[in-house]
Amino acid sequence: MKPVSEKPEFSLQTLAIRGVGLIGGSIAKAARKAGIAQEIVGIGRDEARLQKAVEHQVIDRFETDSKTAASQADLIVVCTPVDCIAKDIVQLHGSLRPEALITDAGSVKEQIVREVCEKLGAKHRYLGSHPLAGSEKTGFEHSDADLFQNAAVVLTPEEQSSKNDLNFLEAFWKALGGKVSIMSPAEHDRALAATSHLPHLIAAALASSVSEDQLPLAATGFGDTTRIASGDPHLWTSIFCQNPNGTLAAAKEFQQQLNAFLEAVEAKDTDKINALLLTAKKRRDLWLNERENS
Amino acid sequence: MKPVSEKPEFSLQTLAIRGVGLIGGSIAKAARKAGIAQEIVGIGRDEARLQKAVEHQVIDRFETDSKTAASQADLIVVCTPVDCIAKDIVQLHGSLRPEALITDAGSVKEQIVREVCEKLGAKHRYLGSHPLAGSEKTGFEHSDADLFQNAAVVLTPEEQSSKNDLNFLEAFWKALGGKVSIMSPAEHDRALAATSHLPHLIAAALASSVSEDQLPLAATGFGDTTRIASGDPHLWTSIFCQNPNGTLAAAKEFQQQLNAFLEAVEAKDTDKINALLLTAKKRRDLWLNERENS
Repeated sequence: MKPVSEKPEFSLQTLAIRGVGLIGGSIAKAARKAGIAQEIVGIGRDEARLQKAVEHQVIDRFETDSKTAASQADLIVVCTPVDCIAKDIVQLHGSLRPEALITDAGSVKEQIVREVCEKLGAKHRYLGSHPLAGSEKTGFEHSDADLFQNAAVVLTPEEQSSKNDLNFLEAFWKALGGKVSIMSPAEHDRALAATSHLPHLIAAALASSVSEDQLPLAATGFGDTTRIASGDPHLWTSIFCQNPNGTLAAAKEFQQQLNAFLEAVEAKDTDKINALLLTAKKRRDLWLNERENS
Repeated sequence: MKPVSEKPEFSLQTLAIRGVGLIGGSIAKAARKAGIAQEIVGIGRDEARLQKAVEHQVIDRFETDSKTAASQADLIVVCTPVDCIAKDIVQLHGSLRPEALITDAGSVKEQIVREVCEKLGAKHRYLGSHPLAGSEKTGFEHSDADLFQNAAVVLTPEEQSSKNDLNFLEAFWKALGGKVSIMSPAEHDRALAATSHLPHLIAAALASSVSEDQLPLAATGFGDTTRIASGDPHLWTSIFCQNPNGTLAAAKEFQQQLNAFLEAVEAKDTDKINALLLTAKKRRDLWLNERENS
């Protein structure tokens, strides 16, 4: 991962968003606020929902015919669930103008890139993005123009990706407030397994390991530690199935840490327990400091 | 655990609090707000700190001589760290009037009860309490008169504890806003291991399993899941050392749940992953519903 230097101003004619939900809607609002697109077009199948998004001034207009929409766009951001992204990219790609680009907002990358390359060959016009922002809430009604302010955004170029496309996409996400870094798809999936996918699995396992009759004795500590277990099961099932190796590798690292704690507790080794807790506290405090000072 | 019926109004002459920090200070403020004590006396060693607590109107006055303080109190609440509680109870007990009672606010109970019985015999005047309320913050400066509003408070009578003492203590905590339940010390420690002690251990192990260079890719999900890992290592070391068996038993249950998840992820078994996530979500949502409707 390498930090990216400041970029100059950025604008484009037509920004198209496939999947106008929380993330897609927030991208639309952030782009409007930043004044970087002449028009913002929603692409989807549900005409009634898309019409509502127009009425809410999230998008300027919509297209339910993806060929028409793709042929007009300068940049398409695919914001559908991770198990639909590759299919949606391939479908839109057929009608894309040669200079236009497709990106996405999915939480996993390797499998999407693999499927895209299988279907479109190496010379495709897709370059992956992952903005690390979201919410328990869904739907464009909860979208937020400031969702990407100071949010990490990872771009995942492949070997054959062009520097021009990478610069273009960097400038796009920076205009939306994001802090861009660049990693390979594989590197991204390993890191996100540790920082996002495994925490979700652990929160879920922890929530399930407390019995119903013990719940009245669970306070805010339990509530915080398990909050993300309330997320959408379908969405997270797709994420785990797209990143099983990364998740299992991160779980191995976690289990080693947990075993060290449990051995120290079994031995009532106060010095060891204290040292382990202190290391954990320092790591957590470092995360908070970096976040607050960013 | 059994719910306890409504109690009539409650008052006492002298409420003494050993350890005027966040919890002790909050008990003092809550008792003052409820108007249940004629006077509230802080007991401790640090005269300057206690004087400040008087100036902040947390306590009415203080005693640094525990014998004097104990001889005047109707109820003493020991709010020192868990590894000091038994020692403090034994020390105060020697000067207690026969009708007065000592309780505490510790997060573990079995070992405290064992030590108290060893030192004072079965006919002691201690009956354990655990208010499930707290904060990352420490010191009476952060104390809050409403900290116990709707908070679960567990009373842990021993076999020889009198019904009168139990009723008295129930009425005390209810006057402070707590929702009282009654469990044996062993039952308490098992339940709290699952709902509080293990979540802390897991949050810490998770914080330590993310490397420093991955931290910029950790977002709010990681932040919530690891928040309690920022707690005081010394305080939590004492808790784990006082409840090793409960913690290890809860860890075994958690590891079974985690392994079920990992096996399903390794097999890319979408139905199984989805079912496990749904069970976890239901448990977490149930907790939130019970809490919001309480």
